[in-house]
Amino acid sequence: MRFPQALESLILEFMKYPGVGRKTAERYALYTINRMDDESVRDFATAVSSAKASVHGCRVCGHLTDQELCDICADPLREQDRILIVEVSKDAFSIEKSGNYRGLYHVLNGALSPINGIGPEELNLTALWPRIQDERVKEIIIATGSTQEGEATAMYLKRVVKDMDLLVTRIAYGVPVGANLEYADDATLAKAIENRRSF
Amino acid sequence: MRFPQALESLILEFMKYPGVGRKTAERYALYTINRMDDESVRDFATAVSSAKASVHGCRVCGHLTDQELCDICADPLREQDRILIVEVSKDAFSIEKSGNYRGLYHVLNGALSPINGIGPEELNLTALWPRIQDERVKEIIIATGSTQEGEATAMYLKRVVKDMDLLVTRIAYGVPVGANLEYADDATLAKAIENRRSF
Repeated sequence: MRFPQALESLILEFMKYPGVGRKTAERYALYTINRMDDESVRDFATAVSSAKASVHGCRVCGHLTDQELCDICADPLREQDRILIVEVSKDAFSIEKSGNYRGLYHVLNGALSPINGIGPEELNLTALWPRIQDERVKEIIIATGSTQEGEATAMYLKRVVKDMDLLVTRIAYGVPVGANLEYADDATLAKAIENRRSF
Repeated sequence: MRFPQALESLILEFMKYPGVGRKTAERYALYTINRMDDESVRDFATAVSSAKASVHGCRVCGHLTDQELCDICADPLREQDRILIVEVSKDAFSIEKSGNYRGLYHVLNGALSPINGIGPEELNLTALWPRIQDERVKEIIIATGSTQEGEATAMYLKRVVKDMDLLVTRIAYGVPVGANLEYADDATLAKAIENRRSF
């Protein structure tokens, strides 16, 4: 006996998510059918579609937002003299949650990885160059991951901006080497920003 | 800064799934927005809605199906003389996967749990009684879990059918006590059915 086709399809859809294997996907799919009422399922499907339709990158910095500008770019009280560069939006969310940083962000949507065909053109860099030419900006803080790709991206950024009148810093390695920012706790992230070093 | 509202809603929706905490839900939600294209998201939302709309309990045995009768009840080659009783559909899927059982099933959609207000009326029993009065049925195999609720359900079933001309058996404890059937491997499940004992 096989699973009914619509159930099998749903299992395969759940398996596309990161870290979700067959058993977990079956659990989610059966939960959907057995434990959620029609209204809950409708709410869930709607939330999936709405989030995809309404959330996109900020026109200025690339950070996720449902407006034209993200909350940070739209906030005149943020310090306009520094831009913290992260690989992905969730890293910016993590740093915001740590509560110690009051400047701006720029989200690259990835990191350089020649082996995977990800070069500078694949990253959100076109929007970065005019930003750092703004004379108000005095510092860029590179907060890419401590992975090989994150390091390569940091080196690339440093090289490109080296002749500009900009302080280039890198967050301190408070975060474990080889790990992603999202797993660091608030205190570690705050410390890492506080101890950023000239780069 | 907070997550955009539609993103936050999606995170909360994912958190309703079993075993999904805040971090995992954020990971799923951000994956949905960042890594899935519009078509994939549409496919996913559709799969959720379709599965819920088209998959339901078999009219005879309660097992999940997208037809009126499940594959097993609709199969005249299945042995019609025994009914294996499970708490939930996924247990029937697990036993089918182990490949050793050729009889019929009955899915209770739960187990007795007075403390949670789940009595016999809450289980799929109304459909069971006429089935076991069919003179072709010679044996019921009770495969409820080895939890307190599973045992209580087994005892209840045994008591109700005790005056009927039926062999009542219980699958062997090849599965670890306190665990759910879904985590048992195929060989263990096959062994447990083979070694079922009079009850």
